Amino acid sequence: MDIRPHVFLDSAAAIPLYRQLAESLRTAIHSGALTAGTRLPATRELAGQLGLNRTTISAAYAILEQAGLLEGLVGRGSFVARGESPVRADFDWDAVLTPLESLHAQPVDDTVNFANSRPDEQCFPMAEFRRLSKEVIDGPQAAEILQLGSPYGYAPLRRYLLAENADAGIARPSDDLIITNGCQQALDLLGRILIEDGTPVLVEDPVYHGLLRVLGRAGAHVIPVPVSTEAGLNVNTLETLVAQHRPRLLVITPDFQNPTGTTLNLEQRKRVIAVAQRFGLVIVETNIYRKLRYCGTAQPSLKELDQTGNVISIGSYSKVAFPGLRTGWVIAPRPVIARLAEAKQTSDLHSDQLSQGVLLRFAESGELDRHLAETRRAGAKRLAAALDSCEQHLPSGSRFSQPEGGMNLWVELPAPLVAQDLLNAARECGVSFLPGPYFSSKGGHRRALRLSFGGLSPEKITRGIAMLGVAASEQLRARSAAALEPAAALV
Amino acid sequence: MDIRPHVFLDSAAAIPLYRQLAESLRTAIHSGALTAGTRLPATRELAGQLGLNRTTISAAYAILEQAGLLEGLVGRGSFVARGESPVRADFDWDAVLTPLESLHAQPVDDTVNFANSRPDEQCFPMAEFRRLSKEVIDGPQAAEILQLGSPYGYAPLRRYLLAENADAGIARPSDDLIITNGCQQALDLLGRILIEDGTPVLVEDPVYHGLLRVLGRAGAHVIPVPVSTEAGLNVNTLETLVAQHRPRLLVITPDFQNPTGTTLNLEQRKRVIAVAQRFGLVIVETNIYRKLRYCGTAQPSLKELDQTGNVISIGSYSKVAFPGLRTGWVIAPRPVIARLAEAKQTSDLHSDQLSQGVLLRFAESGELDRHLAETRRAGAKRLAAALDSCEQHLPSGSRFSQPEGGMNLWVELPAPLVAQDLLNAARECGVSFLPGPYFSSKGGHRRALRLSFGGLSPEKITRGIAMLGVAASEQLRARSAAALEPAAALV
Repeated sequence: MDIRPHVFLDSAAAIPLYRQLAESLRTAIHSGALTAGTRLPATRELAGQLGLNRTTISAAYAILEQAGLLEGLVGRGSFVARGESPVRADFDWDAVLTPLESLHAQPVDDTVNFANSRPDEQCFPMAEFRRLSKEVIDGPQAAEILQLGSPYGYAPLRRYLLAENADAGIARPSDDLIITNGCQQALDLLGRILIEDGTPVLVEDPVYHGLLRVLGRAGAHVIPVPVSTEAGLNVNTLETLVAQHRPRLLVITPDFQNPTGTTLNLEQRKRVIAVAQRFGLVIVETNIYRKLRYCGTAQPSLKELDQTGNVISIGSYSKVAFPGLRTGWVIAPRPVIARLAEAKQTSDLHSDQLSQGVLLRFAESGELDRHLAETRRAGAKRLAAALDSCEQHLPSGSRFSQPEGGMNLWVELPAPLVAQDLLNAARECGVSFLPGPYFSSKGGHRRALRLSFGGLSPEKITRGIAMLGVAASEQLRARSAAALEPAAALV
Repeated sequence: MDIRPHVFLDSAAAIPLYRQLAESLRTAIHSGALTAGTRLPATRELAGQLGLNRTTISAAYAILEQAGLLEGLVGRGSFVARGESPVRADFDWDAVLTPLESLHAQPVDDTVNFANSRPDEQCFPMAEFRRLSKEVIDGPQAAEILQLGSPYGYAPLRRYLLAENADAGIARPSDDLIITNGCQQALDLLGRILIEDGTPVLVEDPVYHGLLRVLGRAGAHVIPVPVSTEAGLNVNTLETLVAQHRPRLLVITPDFQNPTGTTLNLEQRKRVIAVAQRFGLVIVETNIYRKLRYCGTAQPSLKELDQTGNVISIGSYSKVAFPGLRTGWVIAPRPVIARLAEAKQTSDLHSDQLSQGVLLRFAESGELDRHLAETRRAGAKRLAAALDSCEQHLPSGSRFSQPEGGMNLWVELPAPLVAQDLLNAARECGVSFLPGPYFSSKGGHRRALRLSFGGLSPEKITRGIAMLGVAASEQLRARSAAALEPAAALV
């Protein structure tokens, strides 16, 4: 039995890992996820799966045995104790639940976890967060923050963001702004108001898997536009596809795209804008990594280059400040924002206001800019460590992107390596990442993988990629040996 | 031009209303919602529309004139000044936006606003909120709260709610729990996993308009079950409709239903459970007002009475603590929660964690229970004021529900009165409410209206209902006179 989906560990937390593990298993047993009589994995096996020491597992099992939740049977292993049997759920849920949107196992917290595109919580400016949050909590607006709000968002934050983006040339007088629960909800709400069953939508390929989920859910006809590690988005193909399919929508991340880390140059941007204008294509541009540029020259956003008002811009604080505070926004012409507000009200009335108040304070105090500068300094080191390690440790024939910012790097392994096989081997030594098919609408990119380096120290990045290099070389050797085997078998 | 949709006023805020009004108009002008050359309503007209004094409007206009945003032309009125002209939005958005979900103008904050079903912010326990929020912010979990979380919700809050609901007999060992952005998102996500185009769904009639929006969005075939002011849900009709339509789902609020305030008695509950079990009907029960009982005897929730595992329970802190912190939850058998987590991840990854941390602290410290007791004491007085005033001031022939808790009361006016006409008259004297058709899938309940008394002082409730009574009597007199008029015209 694979119990990893029930295990939630946070290596950064103050609670020791063995107690976190015990707590996870206790919850799984109480919730009925692990039923009476279930045999738990052997300590050695679970230690391997989770990238922990065997003693950690033993300590967790011991706690649960003492609590009467596990029974250790000598020579047979540990079993969930038979307590009160749960109420039988007679109801046939499979008969009424709609088809599954998609499956995504919660990745466990490995020793070196390249799977999450998120900032390093070690670098959160906690003192500033604490000080400014208290100002908000003590401030005269606190009661307003706690009361029911507007679907458009907390008005002071909305005003601040509109003014900031007007100054930056992104928001026009004909534009408006709505606050969302991060970029993911912005995409989901845009899906609701722009996509019907079969609406043709262009997306980068590979692309952020959360976008594919939204498009799948909305019933879009997804048309992939290739992104290469060397040249980024293939604009020639884009132009052909637009003329051929007349899509309604292009969703694009011009800066440090997830998963490849590539960026559109100015010429590519101008051509994208031109083809959109010619064919009446709506562009949704996600600008969530834009402020995380570590080197090179910033390019204008598509919204800035737009002359006809058909570009929608998504921003977010989640990648540059605190991802746990779900605050993003959409800037677009007023009719679009009005419709998004309708959809937002149906979806969840409005976004949480305490976080909006705190993030506003964080931004207007100047602490966000200071933190951003610090994040860029740290990010430059992480990126350098990642690129150097790829150069040094990946087997020859590997290709990888050369991002100038963001959190993600795209690696293409040489044949006959397959990313999922490499992941299976890597997990054994406590390294994880997301394999290429995760970022494809059609299960492609089998040889590719995304390395998210934003949340890891340069040392961990170097160590992790070195371990990947060793595992990859081993698999290459094994494949060569296997290729010889049939001949040997004939002997 | 109706500028009310651009006006956001909060009579409880420390900022004077004329400055709030000026600020709203400034935002509307800057965002381009009010374009250059637009004529604003005369002060007397706007004062009437917003239920404010004429001097308040004049003061706001004066501020904006001084700022160069308005031009007052003697004898002609106030116009939005011609500044820089906005970029023309050539793009034809109407051609690409999907059909409108529904329209809902933001109600303005009238002198006596019966339109919002929400608690009184004057009663928010601000000192406790401030103290406990600071504990969370200073606590060891703060960094975890700020980091990306689980689609299931912040684990410590989830554990707390599961344990609390297990003790209360609501959560079974075969159940699980997911945190959502309040009850609205719970309904929206359940719509995603249980409803396809044409899925038959039973709802109370009249019913919470936010549910109708979700069902409309999901493409459900909505089948209304009548709720009367005297007897609550008509279970006979429910049984007939279930046998006839074989619906997949019944969405129901057994306690202090919105909008009627009615509650199912034990026999009704048992019959609902029995028919659901017989026909394999899924029950979604919203329990968000349940803890706001001011008199009478509590009945077991449907989830407690359920034997077969086909009841889904929705809870929320929004009606009992702080609505601006969007935190609700769903308790259901594990397969349902797993699918909700998938939908949640697509929708917005996870709920805001700062609020979850604060609400957990609020609950486990005992302050929530203390606040609830206080809210019930205050609610009892509000309810008594509302019922007494209806008895005393509404014209004879009016019928109204007799809630034992919650925030809402349902009034049916005698013919030939129409709620929308009464609302138009009531707004003139600064009273607002939501008319009956708002709570109908088919524009019914023209004579009915919802009075939400949860956010108003007993004095305001009494004054507001007295004013409604006067306006209703006037309309009755006018109608009688009009009925005589044709005869008079013949003379």
